Amino acid sequence: MRPTGAAHLGHLRGAFENWVSMQDELDTFYCIVDWHALTTDYADTSELRANTLELALDFLAVGLDPERSTLFVQSHVREHAELHLLLSMVVPLPWLERVPTYKEQMTQLKEKDLTTYGFLGYPLLQAADILIYRADYVPVGVDQQPHVELTREIARRFNNFYGDVLPEPKVKLTPTPKLPGTDGRKMSKSYGNTIGLSEDEALVRQKLKTMMTDPARERRTDPGDPTKCPVFDLHKVFSPDETQSWAAEGCRTAGIGCIECKNALADNVVEQLEPVRARREEYASRLDDVRDIYREGARHAREVAGETMDLVRAAIHLPVGDEL
Amino acid sequence: MRPTGAAHLGHLRGAFENWVSMQDELDTFYCIVDWHALTTDYADTSELRANTLELALDFLAVGLDPERSTLFVQSHVREHAELHLLLSMVVPLPWLERVPTYKEQMTQLKEKDLTTYGFLGYPLLQAADILIYRADYVPVGVDQQPHVELTREIARRFNNFYGDVLPEPKVKLTPTPKLPGTDGRKMSKSYGNTIGLSEDEALVRQKLKTMMTDPARERRTDPGDPTKCPVFDLHKVFSPDETQSWAAEGCRTAGIGCIECKNALADNVVEQLEPVRARREEYASRLDDVRDIYREGARHAREVAGETMDLVRAAIHLPVGDEL
Repeated sequence: MRPTGAAHLGHLRGAFENWVSMQDELDTFYCIVDWHALTTDYADTSELRANTLELALDFLAVGLDPERSTLFVQSHVREHAELHLLLSMVVPLPWLERVPTYKEQMTQLKEKDLTTYGFLGYPLLQAADILIYRADYVPVGVDQQPHVELTREIARRFNNFYGDVLPEPKVKLTPTPKLPGTDGRKMSKSYGNTIGLSEDEALVRQKLKTMMTDPARERRTDPGDPTKCPVFDLHKVFSPDETQSWAAEGCRTAGIGCIECKNALADNVVEQLEPVRARREEYASRLDDVRDIYREGARHAREVAGETMDLVRAAIHLPVGDEL
Repeated sequence: MRPTGAAHLGHLRGAFENWVSMQDELDTFYCIVDWHALTTDYADTSELRANTLELALDFLAVGLDPERSTLFVQSHVREHAELHLLLSMVVPLPWLERVPTYKEQMTQLKEKDLTTYGFLGYPLLQAADILIYRADYVPVGVDQQPHVELTREIARRFNNFYGDVLPEPKVKLTPTPKLPGTDGRKMSKSYGNTIGLSEDEALVRQKLKTMMTDPARERRTDPGDPTKCPVFDLHKVFSPDETQSWAAEGCRTAGIGCIECKNALADNVVEQLEPVRARREEYASRLDDVRDIYREGARHAREVAGETMDLVRAAIHLPVGDEL
């Protein structure tokens, strides 16, 4: 995950909870990809360190467990850069130019100059991030599936040239529920419509209270349409079935008002955020331990990455150590 | 220098002798860039290690002195890959696409598929190779001048974003005399027309004996034109002035035959190759010492490169070590 600012509700359901659930069955690696943040935000890196620390706390707050997962920062494991360079030799330019998100992001992030060599290469850097751990699975939502497909193609091409070194990772598709922000658009930091994982109860309640609703329901006495209300989308993610039925019915009949509906949602969101917030506060109070966790994560990641690089270097007929 | 096979006469006058002469005035770094060999020859790397060892011997044979120069192999100093990745974030694609040698080589090396991400990035990797030692000068011939220009532009752009970290290197223009191979075309391994630095006297004499001459001089009695004769081009590089006058005069008047002229050239070439050949043989007989020299070179190069990377990481607001 890129360290681009405080994690929010969208990350919790879309990614973190899936990641947490995988910790028991699999040998899991979760990485804060600070080098990737540079692919789009090279012009202002002043927040990079702070954002990395925030995300490091978020990882722990949502329940990623350093005893069961390797938690680390990408730039601590410089082998990723070496594999990226070596893979670059065999990757055809058109493979990168046709990545769906490439042209898409160029258009969306118009205010940034993304016609750089590094931005064109970001899916290749992702491939290196994955292949360097010889990963079996990559947990992603549908929108990220093409990147894993590309990673498989790159592994295949590498293996064709140099022998069977890099296993092709499989997609572990994770459900990504529709999760609108307070203005009804997709929850995203760039829209300023997020509810952060580390925000306190009062702020969360305040944000939900002023959240956009079905615009057709102008007065308390107007009936509304839950399928057109972003608040109801959040109910579907955070409220139990009975609350969802109550809210849908009350909306359609004007039996309840929007404030009432939002309060019920806020109760559920706050309740589910509470353990996250508490764990975060706890870890934030002992940052030295957090630093040790990530230092140990980096050490272990480097060990595994180093084994892969030895195989890769030998396969290409490069020196494995500093011998001639 | 790329390890693409045994070094030859073209390298001796065009590069090595200039490098040797710089060892006393400057703190010099000479690098065998094995990663660069992959930019064009990724499809068959079977000779890479052997070629690297050959070039390591050639460096020593021509008089590069491990006591005065840092001699090392690029892939032993992995910091080059990290700097390449970090620089890639700020380098506009058009800067790379417009490098003169880029399109040129694509056309020339038609039998290789060079539409790869790595080949497009090779001038950037060169920039990293230079900037990581915060070099003041880069000794190159005119044809390589655009690469140093690009390196300066990249340093400038980096410094604009992140502060004054990477000095702009200056070109140290080295004379590159016209040096034809045995078939009259430019001496180049890809033409199979080279005279190798490690070839023995008999082979050198044999190759020069059958070398192409002014095609208009068909018979011994025909006068020739030295300005159209590749043998005379070699005289200009390897023979003293008096021999050059004798050869030019004898050619124009048909006073001497081509064999005579070539024998005189061969005497001079052989004489100048002799100390190179002897030193090479000497080093080849104690490869363990050669390995130690390059291991020590890599150690020192990593030390200097590591200092630069600490500055670079700090400037970008990346962790310098493995702290959070």
